[in-house]
Amino acid sequence: MGSSFGTLFRVTTFGESHGRAVGAVVDGCPAGLELKTEDIQAQLDRRRPGQSSLVSGRRESDRVAVLSGVENGLTLGTPIALVVENRDQRPADYAGLRQVPRPSHADFTYQVKYGIRAASGGGRAGARETVGRVAAGAVAEQLLKEYFAATVVAWVSAVGSVQAGEIDRKTVSRQQVDRSPVRCPDTRAAEKMAALIGRVKQERDSVGGVITCVCRNVPAGLGEPVFGKLEAYLARAMLSIPASKGFEIGSGFAGAKMTGSAHNDPFVMKGKRLGTVTNFSGGIQGGISNGETIFFRVAFKPPATIGKAQETVDFQGNPVVLEPGGRHDPCVVPRAVPVVEAMAALVLADAALVHAGRAGSKA
Amino acid sequence: MGSSFGTLFRVTTFGESHGRAVGAVVDGCPAGLELKTEDIQAQLDRRRPGQSSLVSGRRESDRVAVLSGVENGLTLGTPIALVVENRDQRPADYAGLRQVPRPSHADFTYQVKYGIRAASGGGRAGARETVGRVAAGAVAEQLLKEYFAATVVAWVSAVGSVQAGEIDRKTVSRQQVDRSPVRCPDTRAAEKMAALIGRVKQERDSVGGVITCVCRNVPAGLGEPVFGKLEAYLARAMLSIPASKGFEIGSGFAGAKMTGSAHNDPFVMKGKRLGTVTNFSGGIQGGISNGETIFFRVAFKPPATIGKAQETVDFQGNPVVLEPGGRHDPCVVPRAVPVVEAMAALVLADAALVHAGRAGSKA
Amino acid sequence: MGSSFGTLFRVTTFGESHGRAVGAVVDGCPAGLELKTEDIQAQLDRRRPGQSSLVSGRRESDRVAVLSGVENGLTLGTPIALVVENRDQRPADYAGLRQVPRPSHADFTYQVKYGIRAASGGGRAGARETVGRVAAGAVAEQLLKEYFAATVVAWVSAVGSVQAGEIDRKTVSRQQVDRSPVRCPDTRAAEKMAALIGRVKQERDSVGGVITCVCRNVPAGLGEPVFGKLEAYLARAMLSIPASKGFEIGSGFAGAKMTGSAHNDPFVMKGKRLGTVTNFSGGIQGGISNGETIFFRVAFKPPATIGKAQETVDFQGNPVVLEPGGRHDPCVVPRAVPVVEAMAALVLADAALVHAGRAGSKA
Amino acid sequence: MGSSFGTLFRVTTFGESHGRAVGAVVDGCPAGLELKTEDIQAQLDRRRPGQSSLVSGRRESDRVAVLSGVENGLTLGTPIALVVENRDQRPADYAGLRQVPRPSHADFTYQVKYGIRAASGGGRAGARETVGRVAAGAVAEQLLKEYFAATVVAWVSAVGSVQAGEIDRKTVSRQQVDRSPVRCPDTRAAEKMAALIGRVKQERDSVGGVITCVCRNVPAGLGEPVFGKLEAYLARAMLSIPASKGFEIGSGFAGAKMTGSAHNDPFVMKGKRLGTVTNFSGGIQGGISNGETIFFRVAFKPPATIGKAQETVDFQGNPVVLEPGGRHDPCVVPRAVPVVEAMAALVLADAALVHAGRAGSKA
Repeated sequence: MGSSFGTLFRVTTFGESHGRAVGAVVDGCPAGLELKTEDIQAQLDRRRPGQSSLVSGRRESDRVAVLSGVENGLTLGTPIALVVENRDQRPADYAGLRQVPRPSHADFTYQVKYGIRAASGGGRAGARETVGRVAAGAVAEQLLKEYFAATVVAWVSAVGSVQAGEIDRKTVSRQQVDRSPVRCPDTRAAEKMAALIGRVKQERDSVGGVITCVCRNVPAGLGEPVFGKLEAYLARAMLSIPASKGFEIGSGFAGAKMTGSAHNDPFVMKGKRLGTVTNFSGGIQGGISNGETIFFRVAFKPPATIGKAQETVDFQGNPVVLEPGGRHDPCVVPRAVPVVEAMAALVLADAALVHAGRAGSKA
Repeated sequence: MGSSFGTLFRVTTFGESHGRAVGAVVDGCPAGLELKTEDIQAQLDRRRPGQSSLVSGRRESDRVAVLSGVENGLTLGTPIALVVENRDQRPADYAGLRQVPRPSHADFTYQVKYGIRAASGGGRAGARETVGRVAAGAVAEQLLKEYFAATVVAWVSAVGSVQAGEIDRKTVSRQQVDRSPVRCPDTRAAEKMAALIGRVKQERDSVGGVITCVCRNVPAGLGEPVFGKLEAYLARAMLSIPASKGFEIGSGFAGAKMTGSAHNDPFVMKGKRLGTVTNFSGGIQGGISNGETIFFRVAFKPPATIGKAQETVDFQGNPVVLEPGGRHDPCVVPRAVPVVEAMAALVLADAALVHAGRAGSKA
Repeated sequence: MGSSFGTLFRVTTFGESHGRAVGAVVDGCPAGLELKTEDIQAQLDRRRPGQSSLVSGRRESDRVAVLSGVENGLTLGTPIALVVENRDQRPADYAGLRQVPRPSHADFTYQVKYGIRAASGGGRAGARETVGRVAAGAVAEQLLKEYFAATVVAWVSAVGSVQAGEIDRKTVSRQQVDRSPVRCPDTRAAEKMAALIGRVKQERDSVGGVITCVCRNVPAGLGEPVFGKLEAYLARAMLSIPASKGFEIGSGFAGAKMTGSAHNDPFVMKGKRLGTVTNFSGGIQGGISNGETIFFRVAFKPPATIGKAQETVDFQGNPVVLEPGGRHDPCVVPRAVPVVEAMAALVLADAALVHAGRAGSKA
Repeated sequence: MGSSFGTLFRVTTFGESHGRAVGAVVDGCPAGLELKTEDIQAQLDRRRPGQSSLVSGRRESDRVAVLSGVENGLTLGTPIALVVENRDQRPADYAGLRQVPRPSHADFTYQVKYGIRAASGGGRAGARETVGRVAAGAVAEQLLKEYFAATVVAWVSAVGSVQAGEIDRKTVSRQQVDRSPVRCPDTRAAEKMAALIGRVKQERDSVGGVITCVCRNVPAGLGEPVFGKLEAYLARAMLSIPASKGFEIGSGFAGAKMTGSAHNDPFVMKGKRLGTVTNFSGGIQGGISNGETIFFRVAFKPPATIGKAQETVDFQGNPVVLEPGGRHDPCVVPRAVPVVEAMAALVLADAALVHAGRAGSKA
């Protein structure tokens, strides 16, 4: 329970941070999609540690192996098993931590829930679990591309109190995002963000941030009413990413301050289809996509693993000063960008198949 | 698809705004819980229109009938069917609107998705669908009460730009919340909120708001890792409520601006169990409840139905000035309070059963 | 848990035998299907007690009310709530039985599982629960008819040791089936069956039987591989019907005695499509429909409720001679015919939507 | 879709017959169970080809690797990924078959459903897919053993028309079953079965058979009412095994010929619990286990792959005489024994967790 996501396009991830391998099985991907290992690898490379001085130094080449479901570059309609071996296992780094639940980690809650924990690192709660999501998300993206020419692009829109300026949701590309190691397409803000991350790193501290994501060319009609609203699934998907604390779509929390007359999106003819003049709805109305660009923001807390000394207690309640070593990300958002994209793609691919099923096809 | 929620404690809602009835079936509720019709009715009364001048004038007595699953005041472990008849059906109010998709409603997307729409009102997209949720949520609350003595309390923490002051999460009660028709326990803020709602009502406009919710006495261990994180299900639940645009838990979006050393919640002995000194985590760590109070905020947009004239186009693209009559809420949050509570209770009850199942029971 | 069935076309039934009402909610039915209350009523009339002297004398008019999801004779794509009130509640008939678990009923297992039971009758385990299935099945049949012109026809092929002769699977119709109250289209066998049922009734005993079902015009391609095989879902559906003890498809248990050279179904051109010369496969190969007629058989045990005296023990282990009154079916199969048809239709409708979803639709 | 099974104890299998690997991910296994790779390997060894002259000569060492979810011999409560590499890939054996759908195989239906097929062999429809089931089933068995000391034993009870004599359901063990390569504990019948299989092999033909399975020490209370009946899940599980054509529980099809007075299982005190004198119910009443031994039978058709010449047509409808080479099982039942056991264990483990969840636990 808990490691699967989706109804018809369904991913199950597996693997401990410091076990033999991590990965995912994608069940329900339609047959006949082009799928190259390189497409999957490209997103994994954007996620992996050690890309720049801003992120964790853990060295993982993270090469994906496709064990099933693809032949001659085409999906077979059968489960696609994706496996990435763990090369850099350093359980020793964590040995001293067994008796102390690290503050704001999952150590305490896993211990309570399971009565047992993986010998080292975050087990399934750590960021490494997202390898399987990113690999599976790349499959979903391929579906969105072939079906709708839809694209998903995410970027860092805030680090700490440094906010990116306005980004053009209609044109922003992954290339633009990747120009800075911090993955913010606003170059000036990117520099400030990098400086801030460098500073907290030096202080052996960490800092939070915000990721914005756009989904373009999503056809109108995806999403189900009531509990199956598209924004509801996006919210679940985003809040399932480690360290995320908030989600808002379209006008979001700012919309709560507006009046209806200002917030409503009037309709207008756009070529041959109805579109909206403004897009405070964020591309979804009544839980169903309306053909406009979908966009949302995800808040990430500062990573809980810091080098700074912290006063806390061990499992028995004895006072302890925690000062962990190890190598960690001072800020999670640059590497979380492909994870947000992956989860968005998984939601949309599943919604596309469910909608096609619901719509059915009369003879 | 779409009208069901939950894995073991599972609710399915049904009913159009202006059809014969709305309601819900709760499947998976354990046997032997005390369940009085009055408990369900009490929350429905907090949700129904016509309670005060601040909300919709639609007159619905909203009496719930329990058709199955309960005998002699005890649940049987079988599906509980809850039905509320629609008394005040006024399809005529909507007759003129068939050709015009109302801005920021679900008219356009439902038409695209289904090729057909309920003859009047919002069909399943309208607020009336939440009757079933509130009825089912009252059953879930009963489970939480008997199992854990857990309580769920929500209140209006903002209307437009009027913010409530700090509310004591440990003690705030529904009685305190209900002292003002706007359902804000900060009396001074409540007055300002009521004044603001009155003003936008007079202007035939609407305004958004924010609801905060606390869940107390939730035991540590609920929630599943990875995609089944408790905050992920809460986020999905909240974003499935009509008009919601955002969700944040614990520190939320503000947490994204913090450093790890400030944000981490150190452990401390609280009686016989480990607790945390601060609670930026919002009662959930690694997706699993840690025994602290769970709290989160939900943003609601201003209701899309306004009396003010709006320029838009009809389904054929012809310019139209829309000036609907009908009776509507100028602000949705006072009546959304029991809906937020219901959805939170449904998430927690389901998580409780899934956790009990996962934990299993060795002979 | 347990009262829902299906993935995209999903039915949830509710209601105790002797409670206020029984019924079902169908979620996921596509929009725009024609659906008349009479179509649903027709199948309910075939299921209800009191049709002939062969079946239970319980008098239930069983009028269905459609509470939602249908407007102007068309489905809206939203949940369809179907409710049938219980008119003939006679809890008194059962009062004496509280302390004795009736042999081969669900009294004992429900008591162990739930620690509580409905005050009278079989609660959810009794045949009355199938009212909701039959009502929902009629909706599924409408989908199959509009999509594929597919038809589902079941009949009684054995009562006790009386076997029906060969029935033409390509032409047999419900009209033919209903010519005899026992629902066997082989008139001569039907007479013998009726005589046998009359005899066991007189002896205050009961007798088992077998139902055969054909599904015609099911397109090739329905069903999912591995655990989602079409015959696997049919088997689950049939074994979920009260009193069923076995399921076999195509050659079934007799096929286990055959050799491959005799059992294999060679292909042949049938008009413009490939078909098979023989049909030992029963219309399904590798879990997926092949376009031939699907057919299967379901075994039903003799009803456990008999008037004859039985020696057993009460819940405390004290010897008891049980001699219940009440009115019951001496043989369940005539009334189970529409239940088998309903479950088959529900499986096929769901498989049709899932297949359409999986197949997806490239732009 | 289709490759997952279970609600709380959930297995997803993956892998093509002739791809890189086959395997399974088990999500939802409780933490703290002892799990040795040898336990899994033992059942895989009973399933693999090449064990005796009676079964397929395909040489697969089938060594399982546990990639996640287990540490120091204990389950972590996280997904358990189990992978078996394919060593003996011989796509060449199948090259000539691309244009001809083999009779009673999945070639035709997969082609219709997906428009594409794995380059060789049965892809997901072949017996090799069951490797993942058997590996996952061994995990489920470990749960049943630790929770309830429950055991699952299956054996071959018929090959063609050769029937095994009465086997003692209370005592039969895997050791007894494995004494003969045909896996029938009735030694005399086993010899006849082996002779029959040898004969059909020589004739390049194949033959069907029946497997009987018992589940002992299953506690009363497992299974959910209505659609979640334990026998319904067992039926689905068994009909999902390649080549199965029928399922019957307890009295099964023979029960349809009986009268209620003979068929009812009277209660009797057995030590401290109520048991039944007879067991025509097969250990399940009203869909819920009653504490007696569960037993059922599964019919398997003769394998469709035979060496004998067959007249059929190719995809274009041209007449073809098919005379395939390759190495295949003349009879599937000896190797299907551990598959039946695995599927039964998966059903029971899932039912155990769901029941524990439903039962919940008041504070």
